[in-house]
Amino acid sequence: MTRKQLIDNIKNKQSFLCVGLDPDIKKIPQHLLDCENPLFEFNRQIIDATAPYAVAYKPNLAFYESLGTEGWIAFEKTVNYLREHYPDQLIIADAKRGDIGNTSRMYAQSFFEHLGVDAVTVAPYMGEDSVTPFLGYEGKWVVLLALTSNKGSHDFQLTEDTDGTRLFEKVITTSSRWASPESMMYVVGATQGRMFEDIRRLAPDNFLLVPGVGAQGGSLEEVCRYGMTPDCGLLVNSSRGIIFASDGTDFAQRAAEEAKKLQQQMAEELKKFSV
Amino acid sequence: MTRKQLIDNIKNKQSFLCVGLDPDIKKIPQHLLDCENPLFEFNRQIIDATAPYAVAYKPNLAFYESLGTEGWIAFEKTVNYLREHYPDQLIIADAKRGDIGNTSRMYAQSFFEHLGVDAVTVAPYMGEDSVTPFLGYEGKWVVLLALTSNKGSHDFQLTEDTDGTRLFEKVITTSSRWASPESMMYVVGATQGRMFEDIRRLAPDNFLLVPGVGAQGGSLEEVCRYGMTPDCGLLVNSSRGIIFASDGTDFAQRAAEEAKKLQQQMAEELKKFSV
Repeated sequence: MTRKQLIDNIKNKQSFLCVGLDPDIKKIPQHLLDCENPLFEFNRQIIDATAPYAVAYKPNLAFYESLGTEGWIAFEKTVNYLREHYPDQLIIADAKRGDIGNTSRMYAQSFFEHLGVDAVTVAPYMGEDSVTPFLGYEGKWVVLLALTSNKGSHDFQLTEDTDGTRLFEKVITTSSRWASPESMMYVVGATQGRMFEDIRRLAPDNFLLVPGVGAQGGSLEEVCRYGMTPDCGLLVNSSRGIIFASDGTDFAQRAAEEAKKLQQQMAEELKKFSV
Repeated sequence: MTRKQLIDNIKNKQSFLCVGLDPDIKKIPQHLLDCENPLFEFNRQIIDATAPYAVAYKPNLAFYESLGTEGWIAFEKTVNYLREHYPDQLIIADAKRGDIGNTSRMYAQSFFEHLGVDAVTVAPYMGEDSVTPFLGYEGKWVVLLALTSNKGSHDFQLTEDTDGTRLFEKVITTSSRWASPESMMYVVGATQGRMFEDIRRLAPDNFLLVPGVGAQGGSLEEVCRYGMTPDCGLLVNSSRGIIFASDGTDFAQRAAEEAKKLQQQMAEELKKFSV
């Protein structure tokens, strides 16, 4: 999906909601456990219920890998289901991969050619040749970790170098030389508040993928105040707050309600910034 | 596997060789493509041929994931085969994972409980709560990326902070507070030469997993000169140089020859350092 298509989808739907498909087998409704593939059935119903309010879906690979082969099948079926029924949704494989060049190339082929997702989250620690194999696919995206939502983000990402540049800032400026905002997004946690101002100085046009609203405590309003651009420039993710809104037979309906609530707040924010 | 068991295996076998099981489907011998699971069949023959000369195996997940479900099955079968037939081999899942706490916990369960490997490579960028969920499993290991073998290692890992500490050094000193050398190893590329001296000042007792000998150009002798400890303290990995020594029907025999060559050099080094 191109940047222009993504922006059009956001404007048309008045939403920049990304739904995190992290279906923990221990938390999904009991009545689904009898299905042939409970994880996929859970995702399918969540997707059907929330698609009107979302522009992107982000399955995190950990929740699929933890079930071995069955989980991997659920992941593939989920991607195929989205592709077939909701081709206007951006699919982000939240995998946080990154390895030496020839190995990153295998991961890139896996996600972009074999599975056909639109975007992959990538970890920057190993530098340029670990990231660039994911670039150069027409209409595909790298979503590079910059400033994450968790407590551990303080351990290394905020370390200042001899010029006073923090590591996450160096990651953004260095990686900006590898790809344009047409194919590079950054992960910035919603818990980082005013740091969005600093990030916008370095990455005025890049889309930011923002986890951490909801269960992790980030504020949508604050993210928009400091992070929104004339093109929106944000994809705000919610996982647990939507998909586990209920663990009963009404889980999909309750997920839709939570997604709709967020979409309505997002529409307000888009209006404020005249997007 | 405990640290003591690992050291005993190294001394008994006079080897600290780790064989990288990175079976690129495009490079494995043609005659295997008719097997039910070519990747597993390739691994099985490589393992049977090289096990006398090795103390560890390191499958890199990228090469399995790239084949989807079939690849995942090959990975599981490989781990099970090693567990059953070669229980004295350390199995390192080269996955370079790392995510927020609850997600890293899923990865840890997947690798340590579901698959039963001994060690997982982990990326440090997201800090403490992305790494600690992999700790606390009796006899299991985190292998944390410190100073990798690739060119991109220079982009961020060598960045000096305001005290002149380089990022990879900060990763080692900070993470040393999370776990002892009984459960934490570090990845240090064989291409890093004298940097091993600096690393040994910070991590005198930790095992180092050293990729980059062979195809990537690192020198075994140099690694040992600057990195070996009285307990050996090294696991040196070779992937392509062993597993793709031949693409004919003699591939397993040629792999054994290459592994044996390395083992003999390793025995010399162990003698030099009286391990």
